[in-house]
Amino acid sequence: MALKQFVAVMRPLIEEELRRTLDIHLSKSLPELYSMLAYHLGWEGEGAGVEVQGKRIRPLLVLLCAASAGGDWQCALPAAVAVELVHNFSLIHDDIQDRSELRRGRPTVWVKWGLAQAINAGDLMFSLAHLSILRLRESCAENSVIEAVQLLQKACVHLTEGQYMDISYESRREITLDEYWPMVAGKTASLLATCTRLGALAAGCEPDRQEHFWEYGYSLGLAFQAWDDYLGVWGDPSVTGKSIESDLVSGKKTLPVVYGLAQRGKFARRWLEGPIRVDEVPQLAEWLKEEGAQEFTRATAEGLTNQALKALNQAISKGAAGDALHELTNVLLLRDN
Amino acid sequence: MALKQFVAVMRPLIEEELRRTLDIHLSKSLPELYSMLAYHLGWEGEGAGVEVQGKRIRPLLVLLCAASAGGDWQCALPAAVAVELVHNFSLIHDDIQDRSELRRGRPTVWVKWGLAQAINAGDLMFSLAHLSILRLRESCAENSVIEAVQLLQKACVHLTEGQYMDISYESRREITLDEYWPMVAGKTASLLATCTRLGALAAGCEPDRQEHFWEYGYSLGLAFQAWDDYLGVWGDPSVTGKSIESDLVSGKKTLPVVYGLAQRGKFARRWLEGPIRVDEVPQLAEWLKEEGAQEFTRATAEGLTNQALKALNQAISKGAAGDALHELTNVLLLRDN
Repeated sequence: MALKQFVAVMRPLIEEELRRTLDIHLSKSLPELYSMLAYHLGWEGEGAGVEVQGKRIRPLLVLLCAASAGGDWQCALPAAVAVELVHNFSLIHDDIQDRSELRRGRPTVWVKWGLAQAINAGDLMFSLAHLSILRLRESCAENSVIEAVQLLQKACVHLTEGQYMDISYESRREITLDEYWPMVAGKTASLLATCTRLGALAAGCEPDRQEHFWEYGYSLGLAFQAWDDYLGVWGDPSVTGKSIESDLVSGKKTLPVVYGLAQRGKFARRWLEGPIRVDEVPQLAEWLKEEGAQEFTRATAEGLTNQALKALNQAISKGAAGDALHELTNVLLLRDN
Repeated sequence: MALKQFVAVMRPLIEEELRRTLDIHLSKSLPELYSMLAYHLGWEGEGAGVEVQGKRIRPLLVLLCAASAGGDWQCALPAAVAVELVHNFSLIHDDIQDRSELRRGRPTVWVKWGLAQAINAGDLMFSLAHLSILRLRESCAENSVIEAVQLLQKACVHLTEGQYMDISYESRREITLDEYWPMVAGKTASLLATCTRLGALAAGCEPDRQEHFWEYGYSLGLAFQAWDDYLGVWGDPSVTGKSIESDLVSGKKTLPVVYGLAQRGKFARRWLEGPIRVDEVPQLAEWLKEEGAQEFTRATAEGLTNQALKALNQAISKGAAGDALHELTNVLLLRDN
């Protein structure tokens, strides 16, 4: 069974479980509050539909890991939904913190309902995530449930640590690689590692094997971010769908930029002078390439991808779900969008 | 042993456990992030000290309930700290939502570190709360730990539901009693009920008895808010420390106001015309009194207090901790500040 077939089976159940979590816990007498979350999740309101719901990569990772660890992946659904809700809580708050007015082409929650309600909607999504994971009780041993709650909460601490770094870097013109990696680890890798480990945990794996799943998710997260940063400078905007200028113009501290700054060449001199104009972007991308940032970023992403695949091979046994995970890994990392 | 003596023993251990929770889980390499939380908790920065730390009523409730249920209250410390962290997470976000620039006389977290970092600091405090409660593992059965996590998360859902109502009422000039009570239940009563029940749970009480503890905390929460609302109009500002005008001038939908509006008398006519000026406050307070709002609010607070005490008596056995809980209940509800 290929990835596509797994997705076709798993995605509807993820959406169903997400809806159930909201239905069980939210007061029926507050339909507007429900709507804020349902809007953000892409179910309701203007522009709602599958194309704005995101790919639900994180819950799919949980379920595929559970399946490839030899478990009944449906038992892992509460954990899958929990990580998706954590991810979406962080998006709602991110959009406020970044003052982003659009997400997937739709007005963000704070734009529609105001700052105060948007902070609160994020907080609610966060609580629902943690209520969801407790439903692992229905199929897992109690100590596994407690482990799962702890894993998820630790990921949330790392997420806020990464977010703290990201926000504090905004006011700086320069950061080092030693500052870049902990931010990416906190913002991206920890949650992906939690996804893959939760799948293994729900499937009843031993701790050693869980550790391989963790390493797979962690390297996958770092590789994913490195490659995303690569595409932010050298990707084809007609394919990636985001304007190529944005990463350089927005002043984002991406991997190529951080590497380029350390070279102290033409790129660094110009960058440190102040914000980059759109018309300068091709020249800066060229300088970055000349100074080795393109090669470095690509090699880093490839190295991390290989680490991820190595850990994956240690974690899984042969089988359709494992093949689908390989496919997913390649889709995420060799993607051109 | 009187309340004062319990507090003298319990408070230092609450602070110690709070610090331990932060120390264990936060990265040592991010001292500024630690400082945001430590500042908010009253440990660090300008004006730090016991007097700005709040009374830690919620953790004290947890511990006193555990003790009066016949348990070793020290085993309940992780739960006590968890509710205090949840309370403080909500204060950090509240201050942003209300645009409050001062808390206990000190600049709020968002004023000192900006909106984005303050949202994130609140999120972190929230995660730490849920990591703290997991340390009940050290002394409680696994199913009790899971129950405790679930109780706390449900309280958080209620908290955000109450907060949603509170924010949405701001833009309205009038609400009814049927809209007032669910807001208070969500914002105040649910978390207090969770405190009292968590104490009983950590002490190993049977569900029936836990239910009495819950009812005690719930009624206590409602009574507390009703009485706070009373003092906001008729309290002596030299004693309460808050300006008496604030509740009427700020347009807050307190119990006397909501009752007064329903009377459709002089108070309601003036209120519905628009914001109240400071110089009008004495006249409006007088009209509220004439129209029965003072008597209603006092009687409501007393009725709820009696409910709380009745539930308390069903919950506890005779003993020093039970006496201290009675004392605490009276301090909270018959207080003039």
